[in-house]
Amino acid sequence: MRMTDILERTRDGSGLSREQIEWLVRGVTDGGIPDYQISAWLMAVYFRGMSDRELAVLTDAMARSGDRLDLSSLGGRTVDKHSTGGVGDKTTLVVAPLVAACGGIVAKMSGRGLGFTGGTVDKLESIPGFRTELSSDEFLALSARHGLCVVGQSGNLAPADKKLYALRDVTATVDSIPLIASSIMSKKLAAGARSIVLDVKVGSGSFMKNIEAAKELAAKMTAVGRAAGRRMGAVLTNMDAPLGQAVGNALEVAEAVRVLAGEGPADLTEVCLALAGEMLHLAVGIDRDAAAQRCKAAMADGSAMRKLCEMVTAQGGDASYIERPEKFRRAKRIHTVRATQDGWLSHMDADKIGRASSVLGAGREKKGEPIDHSAGILLRKKTGDWAACGETLCELHTNDEARLPEAQEIFLSALAFSEDRPEPMPLIYEILD
Amino acid sequence: MRMTDILERTRDGSGLSREQIEWLVRGVTDGGIPDYQISAWLMAVYFRGMSDRELAVLTDAMARSGDRLDLSSLGGRTVDKHSTGGVGDKTTLVVAPLVAACGGIVAKMSGRGLGFTGGTVDKLESIPGFRTELSSDEFLALSARHGLCVVGQSGNLAPADKKLYALRDVTATVDSIPLIASSIMSKKLAAGARSIVLDVKVGSGSFMKNIEAAKELAAKMTAVGRAAGRRMGAVLTNMDAPLGQAVGNALEVAEAVRVLAGEGPADLTEVCLALAGEMLHLAVGIDRDAAAQRCKAAMADGSAMRKLCEMVTAQGGDASYIERPEKFRRAKRIHTVRATQDGWLSHMDADKIGRASSVLGAGREKKGEPIDHSAGILLRKKTGDWAACGETLCELHTNDEARLPEAQEIFLSALAFSEDRPEPMPLIYEILD
Repeated sequence: MRMTDILERTRDGSGLSREQIEWLVRGVTDGGIPDYQISAWLMAVYFRGMSDRELAVLTDAMARSGDRLDLSSLGGRTVDKHSTGGVGDKTTLVVAPLVAACGGIVAKMSGRGLGFTGGTVDKLESIPGFRTELSSDEFLALSARHGLCVVGQSGNLAPADKKLYALRDVTATVDSIPLIASSIMSKKLAAGARSIVLDVKVGSGSFMKNIEAAKELAAKMTAVGRAAGRRMGAVLTNMDAPLGQAVGNALEVAEAVRVLAGEGPADLTEVCLALAGEMLHLAVGIDRDAAAQRCKAAMADGSAMRKLCEMVTAQGGDASYIERPEKFRRAKRIHTVRATQDGWLSHMDADKIGRASSVLGAGREKKGEPIDHSAGILLRKKTGDWAACGETLCELHTNDEARLPEAQEIFLSALAFSEDRPEPMPLIYEILD
Repeated sequence: MRMTDILERTRDGSGLSREQIEWLVRGVTDGGIPDYQISAWLMAVYFRGMSDRELAVLTDAMARSGDRLDLSSLGGRTVDKHSTGGVGDKTTLVVAPLVAACGGIVAKMSGRGLGFTGGTVDKLESIPGFRTELSSDEFLALSARHGLCVVGQSGNLAPADKKLYALRDVTATVDSIPLIASSIMSKKLAAGARSIVLDVKVGSGSFMKNIEAAKELAAKMTAVGRAAGRRMGAVLTNMDAPLGQAVGNALEVAEAVRVLAGEGPADLTEVCLALAGEMLHLAVGIDRDAAAQRCKAAMADGSAMRKLCEMVTAQGGDASYIERPEKFRRAKRIHTVRATQDGWLSHMDADKIGRASSVLGAGREKKGEPIDHSAGILLRKKTGDWAACGETLCELHTNDEARLPEAQEIFLSALAFSEDRPEPMPLIYEILD
């Protein structure tokens, strides 16, 4: 087999055979194919796309390129969720215990954040003692006992994707629907859950800037998952503004706890219930309305909160931080940003707010950099709110006062005001099943 | 400047600025831009093409990426020719002395062959003693004295092209008109002649398989040359069958001598006169008909032949081989291939005939491999001829008898016969000026 033949066929849209795709993925993984041929192939895919058959074979081969989690001992109710990035997205912290409290099994690997905000693993590590690195035996044992375990990505999961992603990042081939779909789904397939719910974000704070592209991405990913024998669902959610009010690790954990207590921001609560309902629907096979009702009940009766405490304790964390989130160490300096005029807040650029939070210390720019768990932003006004001159727009939390001016400048540049009340935006565009 | 920005702009067809293109070519030349980004860019160009402005800037930057020949001391009548590859193409051996005999100045660098057949330099080196490696002072001195000097490519001519070509070869991005045009023209611009005639081959034995693509390539290249201040002409010639009857180095020199003596094959003679006429027309500024007449006269009166002998002697070669080509050492084994049926020869695949000749020893597969100057093929029948059963189709010349069966098999697979007389094909499609 020769890479130039594969390049020609992809370039001409002639389609690749299963054997060719599997050979390609092996060569990507073991370094047998040089980077310059892989990157030319990525650009050809960018222009030519892939058929559904090719995409399914590619994703499957990528999923099998490294370690795979075997969750079969946990039975058929395992369910995973993936959000396609976003700012202030703490949904995993809410939906994982919620679904587990209702009978789904959430044995989940989550990522560390790279870029604007911390990932779920970084957020969980704001809880003193919480361990995100478990052996696979311990991971399976805790998942079996509690129906819930969230750990960091370990082992060598989908190494073909790591290689392809690194090249896409430097060759202007990130924004390709088949390449995004295969990247996400290869890791999800390798992570082993029987059911998978995709939270596809649409808007300024996400990969997909418009609804059509987001729908296409969701459709491709669910088709790939089904071809691999998984139960699939997808929820298209708005990411034009950050979700909830908190951006930053410990701040987001505290907010997630408020949601589980029924006291969280309405937008975040609504998205979490939609995702948890879809997950439960797939995991235990009850209809979507019944699943949504059961999730609401688990919030109301405290069982979801108890499940979160159970997980935190099981993974070595101090659950008193969940019971009394005011225990989280606050940042040394909390700076209030106020409105300097009257007006309706008509737009918030979620990307920029994430960047401001990162400047305050809540994100990392390079792999392995430490993160400041107490840093971040609490939004007091969001898109659609009226702000009178002098009212608080947000609080900036940081331990490094020197960073405040830059963070404030970026934060303010993210906002747009208008004299007219803006049209309300839908929070959930569509649920694809 | 960032390569990812350049990649995005090319990918989206947004166009690159002069500064961006010059930065890119510098990074290609000095290794500052990694191969995987260059190859992704080549694939993006394959899909998006380039504007005429971008192509001119790119080619100019590539031409300036290394050494350039300064032919200004030779005055305004310097003229170069480039053929876009082909099998049995010995036109340089004919047109260079012909044009020089008529007052043009041909101070020319030629390539060694890589692939099927030897290049002009390999052909000239079949003449005992002939030196193709001269210092640039000697090259200029001989060009000034005789109006004619042909040497191998020396120095560091258009290193950006060397790098890009090596990557194109392994990333399925060879067949891109702007990439072909910039590759050829960067070397021609660096080689310094005031006038340039392009011999763009069309057909099975060439890059361009159809006339439209060939015309587009010719138009792009002449536009680039004119943008750089050169006088440009282009002749579109048929390369569905090899040119002339000889394929192989010494065999082709002997055939070129026959053409200069007015005794060569009609097709080769016609193409040589068209090219030489166009070169002379541009170089000395007389009209094309007058130039063609003057070239014919130089063949008839022996002055072109004397000019070739003059050059051979000046470059250390034994001119008696030109005066008596039968002196060339013949290959040890000459095998006659005969027709096994009656029929019209309706098609010859020039590529395959080149390959058969290479198997006999006339070509090289890797840079630096030695070449057998006496090996090759003499075609006795060509497309459009009638072959009776038992008639000679060709002679295979080789010093390695073991290679005969493979060469014969490839040769025969290149031929197609029919019961009907094939339509004659034009030899010269068009002259663009």
